[in-house]
Amino acid sequence: MRIKLIVSYDGTAYCGWQVQPNGITVQQQIEDAIFKATGETVRVTGSGRTDAGVHAKAQVAHFDTNCTIPPQKIFKALNAHLPSDIKVLSSEMVDDNFHACTSAKSKTYQYFLYNSEVEHPLKERYAVKIDGDIDVQKMLDASKAFIGEHDFKAFCASGSGAKTTTRTIYNIDISDTDHYLSVTVKGNGFLYNMVRIMVGALVAVGKGEMQKTDIEKMLSTGERHF
Amino acid sequence: MRIKLIVSYDGTAYCGWQVQPNGITVQQQIEDAIFKATGETVRVTGSGRTDAGVHAKAQVAHFDTNCTIPPQKIFKALNAHLPSDIKVLSSEMVDDNFHACTSAKSKTYQYFLYNSEVEHPLKERYAVKIDGDIDVQKMLDASKAFIGEHDFKAFCASGSGAKTTTRTIYNIDISDTDHYLSVTVKGNGFLYNMVRIMVGALVAVGKGEMQKTDIEKMLSTGERHF
Repeated sequence: MRIKLIVSYDGTAYCGWQVQPNGITVQQQIEDAIFKATGETVRVTGSGRTDAGVHAKAQVAHFDTNCTIPPQKIFKALNAHLPSDIKVLSSEMVDDNFHACTSAKSKTYQYFLYNSEVEHPLKERYAVKIDGDIDVQKMLDASKAFIGEHDFKAFCASGSGAKTTTRTIYNIDISDTDHYLSVTVKGNGFLYNMVRIMVGALVAVGKGEMQKTDIEKMLSTGERHF
Repeated sequence: MRIKLIVSYDGTAYCGWQVQPNGITVQQQIEDAIFKATGETVRVTGSGRTDAGVHAKAQVAHFDTNCTIPPQKIFKALNAHLPSDIKVLSSEMVDDNFHACTSAKSKTYQYFLYNSEVEHPLKERYAVKIDGDIDVQKMLDASKAFIGEHDFKAFCASGSGAKTTTRTIYNIDISDTDHYLSVTVKGNGFLYNMVRIMVGALVAVGKGEMQKTDIEKMLSTGERHF
């Protein structure tokens, strides 16, 4: 049977989601927990391969198993073998056609920033410091350039290995509460470092170092200039 | 001259504020940074001696110095020598009578809890998990028992070494947002583990394991029963 998991993790200690030879990954930890709980060696498929240091509030994953643990109790069995920075929030049986990545209707990334002259120890773990004046309204206006289907070649790091660099962005929200900014990007998928680079461009616009038209040009030419 | 600092830290890695022989403390780190920045060996006085693992958003501290760095730039000089989990947010010259602890008009502690069956990796660092049903209204009601001047002997851990266990609580706020509770306690000072034990009592009331009258009795008798 196929099991769908909702996974949450603090990615600080991990080299991202995907199993790799050098370094501990989230996927490896979950597969190890499944082995300890069921005795089965399986591959866990995630909704995406998050980059190193990325956290997850609720990431979907799936795997196939013949174990006899009731599906809705599997998350507890896995949590008993997972470290405190990775936990499964729920588990359920799904149709064999269900796929954590390709069945996704959309995926949402959030990027947190705070505007300060001084590093704040209590913000540093989950947000990036930016200094200097920042115009959030300009960021919001420029974010519209990303909406829709575009070739995001200029907005990804090399080495992603993706077949195509075309992605669709459905929505971008930017909220600003007491110099704490959150940028929420909803799309059909994201390339290697794509959200990070998009947010970098928006911050440059907010600082007046770049214009919305520069983003539009990078989207149309596929060349990054910043 | 006397310098007032506003300090913020993530206390996870430290054995609390006060210098001690076995373990790294926040006070030690700040005194080391002052030595590196000014060449002076000084004692930094904090507004309170926070317990191990306690974090600070904005803790006041002071020290005396003969250094020639302009007072309002001292925080930058110290930050250059402080680790990323301790930073000074501001510095200014104050009257020689100013004292970080005894000049304080009030001190505010916040305790964060989240109500969940499963540990959440992204909440664990700054909040304590509680499970089972919790009645926040009952907690709020019971919290009124603490308001005013009381002998908090039943609500402190042994070994505090305080001259008196009488303290005044000015206000307690409890907010509940999406199963994430914050308990904010404002008082003239706090004993060893006092806020932690007070919140433990309020959670017991919220779970129906204790009544407001039990708190009142513990305050009047000085004996803890939970």
